[in-house]
This record gives sequence, structure tokens and C-alpha cells, in this order.
Amino acid sequence: MDATAREAQSGLEWRVTVPEGASVTVEYESGLAGRAWAWLVSCVAVLGAKVSGFAKKVWKIGADDPRRAVHSLKVGLALTLVSVFYYTRPLYDGVGGAAMWAIMTVVVVFEYTVGGSVYKGFNRAVATASAGLLGLGVSWVASKSGDKLEPIITTGSLFLLAAAATFSRFIPTVKARFDYGVTIFILTYSLVAVSGYRVDELLALAQQRLVTVAIGIFICLAVTVLVWPVWAGQELHLLTVRNMEKLADSIEACVDDYFAADAEEEEKRDPKASKSEGYKCVLNSKASEDSQRNLARWEPAHGKFGFRHPYGQYPKLGAAMRHCAYCVETLHSCVGAEVQAPEHVKQLLSDVCTRLGAQCARVLKEASRSIAAMTVSRELDLAVAEMGTAVHELQGDLRDLPFSLAKEPGEASLIDAMPLFTMASLLTEISARIEAVVEAVDTMASVAGFKQPEDDDEKKGDAELKLKVHPVNESDSDEPPENNRSKATV
Amino acid sequence: MDATAREAQSGLEWRVTVPEGASVTVEYESGLAGRAWAWLVSCVAVLGAKVSGFAKKVWKIGADDPRRAVHSLKVGLALTLVSVFYYTRPLYDGVGGAAMWAIMTVVVVFEYTVGGSVYKGFNRAVATASAGLLGLGVSWVASKSGDKLEPIITTGSLFLLAAAATFSRFIPTVKARFDYGVTIFILTYSLVAVSGYRVDELLALAQQRLVTVAIGIFICLAVTVLVWPVWAGQELHLLTVRNMEKLADSIEACVDDYFAADAEEEEKRDPKASKSEGYKCVLNSKASEDSQRNLARWEPAHGKFGFRHPYGQYPKLGAAMRHCAYCVETLHSCVGAEVQAPEHVKQLLSDVCTRLGAQCARVLKEASRSIAAMTVSRELDLAVAEMGTAVHELQGDLRDLPFSLAKEPGEASLIDAMPLFTMASLLTEISARIEAVVEAVDTMASVAGFKQPEDDDEKKGDAELKLKVHPVNESDSDEPPENNRSKATV
Repeated sequence: MDATAREAQSGLEWRVTVPEGASVTVEYESGLAGRAWAWLVSCVAVLGAKVSGFAKKVWKIGADDPRRAVHSLKVGLALTLVSVFYYTRPLYDGVGGAAMWAIMTVVVVFEYTVGGSVYKGFNRAVATASAGLLGLGVSWVASKSGDKLEPIITTGSLFLLAAAATFSRFIPTVKARFDYGVTIFILTYSLVAVSGYRVDELLALAQQRLVTVAIGIFICLAVTVLVWPVWAGQELHLLTVRNMEKLADSIEACVDDYFAADAEEEEKRDPKASKSEGYKCVLNSKASEDSQRNLARWEPAHGKFGFRHPYGQYPKLGAAMRHCAYCVETLHSCVGAEVQAPEHVKQLLSDVCTRLGAQCARVLKEASRSIAAMTVSRELDLAVAEMGTAVHELQGDLRDLPFSLAKEPGEASLIDAMPLFTMASLLTEISARIEAVVEAVDTMASVAGFKQPEDDDEKKGDAELKLKVHPVNESDSDEPPENNRSKATV
Repeated sequence: MDATAREAQSGLEWRVTVPEGASVTVEYESGLAGRAWAWLVSCVAVLGAKVSGFAKKVWKIGADDPRRAVHSLKVGLALTLVSVFYYTRPLYDGVGGAAMWAIMTVVVVFEYTVGGSVYKGFNRAVATASAGLLGLGVSWVASKSGDKLEPIITTGSLFLLAAAATFSRFIPTVKARFDYGVTIFILTYSLVAVSGYRVDELLALAQQRLVTVAIGIFICLAVTVLVWPVWAGQELHLLTVRNMEKLADSIEACVDDYFAADAEEEEKRDPKASKSEGYKCVLNSKASEDSQRNLARWEPAHGKFGFRHPYGQYPKLGAAMRHCAYCVETLHSCVGAEVQAPEHVKQLLSDVCTRLGAQCARVLKEASRSIAAMTVSRELDLAVAEMGTAVHELQGDLRDLPFSLAKEPGEASLIDAMPLFTMASLLTEISARIEAVVEAVDTMASVAGFKQPEDDDEKKGDAELKLKVHPVNESDSDEPPENNRSKATV
């Protein structure tokens, strides 16, 4: 019944296909014209399919993040504003004049995030002003030093300054904060030095250009801040929070997949594949973290982010998370490995490993919630302590494994359990690296001044949590949790 | 003797320190002037130290890669050339005119690599031409449609085109290849649309601007190609080769460190620390690989790199290497872990693990040599086969471990050996991932058309190698090497 329905469906699909159908019907008409027509129809159909495929892809880009479409409209708006501003001015003097610089400024300065626009605007303004002043000074000196020396001074200073400024871009601090400014500095100085204008003409020109650039920057910043602003700091914050959640889900899913019985394996693995591979996002996020951090420091205070919000902590937190993700990557390949421990051996550690995986995920999720809310989490320390307990339980079970195996029916060598040992070691190492992540979160909480939590009693289910956690804390006292936090334990 | 010498030295150092000495001597002079003088002297000394420290840092940047200094001089040269070109022209018409566009083009188009300059030059030329043409067309239509409609058409088209072009930058292909072109397209179209010139004036302007931009691009490309060129393709190639060598050294150093006796540990580990951490370069190279690959595709044929050299293979190879480096990272943390297997247990696997580590390194080094020389390596397959044999030996030794332990004097539980199992599993997994790297190298060799090796007999020591390798190949026949290449084995 199901098969026939599918056949009927696929038959329908085939009948819809335009190019083939068209070529079949026109085969009766003889001659070149008919074939050409068929070819044309099939070409149009293929082109139409390609265009609609492309349109769908483009639509998806916009639908995935509507702020992209908004950003495009914002650029259009800023450009329209600046052009209308210059259109309506009585002193309008064509493309060679002031309007050009304002338009150029808007096109080049407008960036996706507020931080990006501020960075470029600041760099452009400062570089234009300083290079203009320097150029004026050198022009003045050159004009006083005679017709013969003048071109030598002008060209020589251009060569030296351009070379020095270009070289300064290789200094990491300059690269990170003033890269665009250096370009504009060289550009402005070249224009002033080579202009050949007299100094008094230059002064007027420089003043006009500065005002125009300022107007362009002002329009950019107004549009970027007032119309649905995208803050680089907030993006960085969200990226970090999201990555931490993905890492948590990934660890839990990996452990669950590992101990899922082989029979259920196929059904279980597919829907979870995306979850257990979440660590990949963490592995690849360094570049975007660094660039967003560089832009975020230009942003004024906004929302929960103060003026001196420690954006520098995010890449450190990201590094700790990546350190953890490297290990999760190895764990993930254990799940898909060909050589596995026998199922009944796996079952011996299944409970304790699953518990540890869940505790690891709980710690990361709690840390992620704490960062998301910018609030110190009371539960975080408890979760870390419980994770430490789970590690001890795992180590205890591992120590008992030879005796457990001996009790099992059939012949189970300890060597068969080797892949399981690897899995357990990796899980232990992951929990140690999660503690490093928690330390980074603690540092961020103290540096960024996270809020103290409100009265916990309001929170749902907190009372039960405390009851569950208390005995764990006591049993942990013979092995202080500080010890767990110290170092890798693989 | 040594101690007194050091003391004397440190005493000398203290006497040299300027600010403190100065403040001590001037304490005798009474009054404000003396203190101000002391303060000034110490300020100058601190400033001097800072300046000299900064100068040293800048010098180091240049000394590490002299091509950076050369690049700076090249930018100066190109700018000087273009300004002299316009200085000496009789029709020179100041900063508002043609010279400006040529200078602007040189400043913006000149990049560190040839590929970067070609990318920007091509984008600038095509975007200027197409946006200019489109702007002319729209201006003509607008001028024909009456005074009322004209500003609406002009501004409306500006808004729509700017928004559409900005949105197109979110399409990955456009972002990777035409990002700069889109900016220039918006810029040029805005300038033409808002110019307010008549169409015939615009035509002359457009033509002049195109010629000027072309001259700027020509000067840029001439300087960048003729004076000590830096090719993005070659950089990418070298980066890949170097990373592969570092990965090889890293694996070998990690294994050696792990089995180094505790007594020698301290002396051994320090000099090797940099070697065993070479994998970190591999972990962080994704961004530079991607960007260099994007630039390399713009480069013409040069040296060993043909016009259609498959630069796209390098990021794939890089991904395979990173996949391997994740595992090496975990291995590296085993070396530094607190919980270790007892020394005598370690010694049982020391030989076989060290051999496997050396084989892994040998395969990677051979692969790296093959890429560096762009020659198919005959030894590579043999090295992979030997690595497979080493893996089998390790697995055999692991299977025998319970019996070996039983023969040892004293009580050695198999559980003590757990960290060693993890180490062995990781090493096995690393060798599986190295096989994936070798596959990527093979793909590259066939796609890029690597040369076949010349007659091997000329090579030093090749005959002995073959002798050594042959029996290994035979012993491997019961477990075909293709099988080793299939999947992860942790």
C-alpha cells in the first residue's frame, strides 16, 4: 500500500518535469525549427530552475537572519540620506566636490555592527585630520624651500611616510585597532602632498573635506545605532553562550550514543547526529571571536554591556571551551569507532559514564545560563562538586572492573574493555577541562561584575536540588574539590 | 666562583640603572628645581627605555620576515611612481581630477601578496566599469523622464541597488571573491547617480576615470610582480608543508616525552617543549589557509604553480591535519597528566609505542617532502605500510600485556596500566587520522599532477631502505594496508 502510493507519487513527479515532456511532444514536428524550439524551451526551463534555486538560497540567507536584510536596507537608507542632503543644498558643486567625500565615507564606513562602524568612522576621522595637517605642514615647508627642492621634499616625504605607515600595519596592535586608519592616512597624505595646490587653497580644501567626512560619519552612526542596531559585543556574548550550550549537548549526546544498545543504534544516532556534533562550532569559532572582540571594544555602553565591559575575557573563555572541544572531538570518534568493547562490558560502566556525561553537560549549561543572565550562579559550584563526585565514582568503578568482569558469565578479558578505558579517560579529561572553563567563567564574573543571584527560594525546584546536593558535598570532603580543579587527569 | 661572578654582574646592572641613581645624587641639592630635574631625568630614562623596547619589537617584526620591510618599500615606490607620473604630465589638473583616482587606486589596491593585488585590481576595474555604465544608463533614463521624476528615479535606484548589492555580500561566494568589488560598485554608482552632471559630461568623466584607475592598477601590478613578489599560492604551499612537519615533530616529541624516565624528565622536556607543541600551529591555521586560498586563485601561473593549480586541495589537506592535531592535543595532555602508569609498566610498551610514534612522524615527514617537491613519493606507501605494522605490533603487545605484567616482580594491577591504554589508543587513532592525511595528499598529487619520482637508485641510502622495507610488506599481506586506511580504530 505504501509502496504503490510512493510509485504513484514518483510517477506524478516525472510527468511534471518540463524539458523532457516538451522534447517528447515536439519530436513529431519535423525540421530544425522544432528542435531549436525544444532546445530553447529546455534551456529556459533549466535556467528557470537555476534561477529559482539561487533565489531560494538567497531567500534562505535572509530568512536565517533577517538582520542581514535590515542591514542592506540601512545601507540604502544612509546613502539616500546623504545624497538627498547634498541634492538639496544650494551650494552643490558636482561629483568632484564635497558630496563625493560624504558618499564615499558612507559607503566605506557603514558596517554590519555598531562597533565596526565606530571603528571605521573613528579611524577615518582621525587619519584624515592628522594626515591632512601633516601634509599641510610639509607642503608649507616645501613651498618655502625653492622650486628645485620642492618636488624632492614632497615625493621623498611621500615615499618615506607611505613605507613607514605600511610597515606599521605589521605591528599586531596597529593591525587590530588602526588598520583602516593607516590606509586612510596614506591616502590623505598622498592627495595633499601631490595636489600641487597652494597652501591657502589647501587649507580651505582640508577644512571642507573634514566637515564632509564628519557629516558622512554622523549619518552612518545615526542610522547604524538608531535603526535596529547590531552590537558586536552582544553578538560575541551570544556566540559564547550558544557555543557553551552546544558543547554541553554534544558531550551528553556523545556519551548517550556510545552506550546506546547496538540494536537501537541506527534509529538513535540519526536525530542526535546534529547534537553530538555541536562541538564543531566551538572548534571553528576562534576567528569570529577575535574579530568581534576587536570591534566590540569600540562600542559605547548599551543594554547590559557597560563602557568598560571586559570583552577581552570572551576569547579566553573561548580558548578554554576549544580546549575542551578538542577532547570531545576525540570522544566523538570513539563513538563511531569500529573496534568497540563487548556490549556486556560496556553495560558495566554505562550508568556511571552516562551520569558523568550528564553532570558535565549540567555544569556547562549552568555556566552558560550564568553568562547569559550576567548573574553569579550559586548552582554552578554545586554542579562542579557533583561532577567531581561522578568522576570519583567512575574511577571507583574502573578500579572494581576486574572483579565485576570476573563475576560475569562467559570469558571477558580485560583487554576487551580497553576501548571503554579510553572512553572513561577521555570523559575524565573532559571534566577536568570543563573545570578550566568554569574558572574562566568565574574570572569573567568577577571582572565584569556579574550580579549576585536573587533569593533562590523563588526558583522552581531549587529546594529539591539542595537536598540532593547536600550529602554529595559531605562525601566529597575527603577529596577536596579544589584538588579536582587543579590539572588534567588522563 | 660562579656565584660571585653573577653577583658582581648583578651589582653592575644595579649601578647602571639611571633613574634611581639620579634621584639619590640630587637628593643633596635642596628645593623644587632639583626634584623636578630628577623627575625629568627619570622620565626621559623611562621613555628612552620604552622607545628602545618598542624599536626592538618593530625591528624584530622586520627581521623575522624581511619581506615585510620590502613590502613597505614597494608601497612607497608604487605611490612615488604614480605621483611622479602625474606630476610630470602637462595636463595636470589638481587633486579633484584624474591624479586623485590613480593615487587612491594604488593606496587601496596594493596588497602584500600578488593574489591580493590582482583580486582588488580586478574587482576595482570591473566594478568601476559596470557601475559606471549602469549609472550612465539610469542617468540617461532619468534625464528623459522630466524634472519631477528625475530625482525619484535617481534616488530610488540608488537605494535599491545599494541595498541589493549590500545583501549580495552575505552570499558566501560573493563574499569570498567579490567583496571589494561590491563596495566599489556601490561607491561608483552613487557618485555617478548623485553627480548631477549631464550625460555627455558624465561620459567624458567616466572614460577619464576608467583610464586613471587602469593606470593605477597597472603600476600596482607591475611593482608587486616585478619587485620581489610574494605569491599567496606559494605561502599557502609553504604553510601546509611546514605545518605537516611540525605535526610530525610534535607526535614524535610527545611520545618520547611520555616514555622519558622521570629522572631525566626535567632536562629532557624543556628543550623539546617547543617541538611537542608544534600541533598548536596546525590547530590555528584555518583562517590563514582559507584567506590565502581565496587570494591564490587570482594568481597567474608562477614557478611550480600552474594556472589551474588546485589550491582548493590545501584547505582539505589542512582539515585532515587539524583532525589529526585534535588528537595530538589530547595525547599531549596525557604527557603532562598527574595520574601516570607506573614506570615499569610504561617500559613494557615503551619500545613499541616509540616505534609507532616514529613511524607516524616518518609518514608525515615523507608526505610533507612529497608536497614540498611536488613529486609523487614512492616511500610514502611503504612508510604507511610500516606504520600499519607498528600499529599491529602495538595491538599485539597490548593483548599480551596481562601475561607480561604477571611475569613482572611485585604487584602490578592491570588498572594501573589504564593511562597507558589511553595513550596507546590515542596513538592508534592518530595513525588512523594520519592515513586520512595521506589520502588527502594522494588526492592532491593526482589532481595537481605531481611529477613521478626520478630513478630512485641515485638517492642516498635508498637501497638499504628497500631491503628494510621488503619483509615488512610481506608480513603485512595478511592484513592488507587498504584495510588500515579505512576508519578510526580507537
